[in-house]
Amino acid sequence: MRNAAILLAHGSRDAHWLAPFQRLTDSIQQQLSCERIELAFMELAEPSLNTQIFKLAAEGFQHLDIIPLFFAEGRHLRKDVPQQLQQFREQLIQKDLHVSLTLHSPVGLEAEVIQGIQQVVGKKLKKTHT
Amino acid sequence: MRNAAILLAHGSRDAHWLAPFQRLTDSIQQQLSCERIELAFMELAEPSLNTQIFKLAAEGFQHLDIIPLFFAEGRHLRKDVPQQLQQFREQLIQKDLHVSLTLHSPVGLEAEVIQGIQQVVGKKLKKTHT
Repeated sequence: MRNAAILLAHGSRDAHWLAPFQRLTDSIQQQLSCERIELAFMELAEPSLNTQIFKLAAEGFQHLDIIPLFFAEGRHLRKDVPQQLQQFREQLIQKDLHVSLTLHSPVGLEAEVIQGIQQVVGKKLKKTHT
Repeated sequence: MRNAAILLAHGSRDAHWLAPFQRLTDSIQQQLSCERIELAFMELAEPSLNTQIFKLAAEGFQHLDIIPLFFAEGRHLRKDVPQQLQQFREQLIQKDLHVSLTLHSPVGLEAEVIQGIQQVVGKKLKKTHT
């Protein structure tokens, strides 16, 4: 089965906010060179989740892992995105595209990211106080 | 000089979104037991930045490090929060409270957090594909 992953960020009208997410995606793509990794924004910016899902489906990917670059799980990830995905699943079937979509929990809830935040806070405070 | 730190998250009306930030703050407080660490939300939730700054100032802290729990620097961190801080600085002086405020860059732009995200994405994809 051909798999791809979509990193899902919130999105913003501010290009300055968007830029680090593309750099992060490129860096993860480079690290996980065997995987196909794309970036999508939930709202306010392109490429949207819609754009990326149908692009990857048209390329023949059969399973898409959607990994939210969020710190926590609010209304967006518990209601809005699952509703969008349900619509996309129906549209994919109508187009005879057989693609399964898995929405993961946000990266910010995972131990590795929490540990990274702890290290950064410790470092910033040490730098200020010395 | 007595220092304290405020971890600043975006904020949401959704209590489910807010909860992990308090857990993260508690865990960082535990790890950095010599520091005083508080959590504040930029909007939509209490405690606000305003609440925490004046609470810590009243307790006699003289320097506050404000560390954004954000992935990137958009309008909020480049305009809204600096404007708020300028207002707070003026209000602190009016109340004869001598407190300096430092706004840091967001944790999400730092190597330790980026590395954590890379590890989590790699882990999630490995788990799905095997």
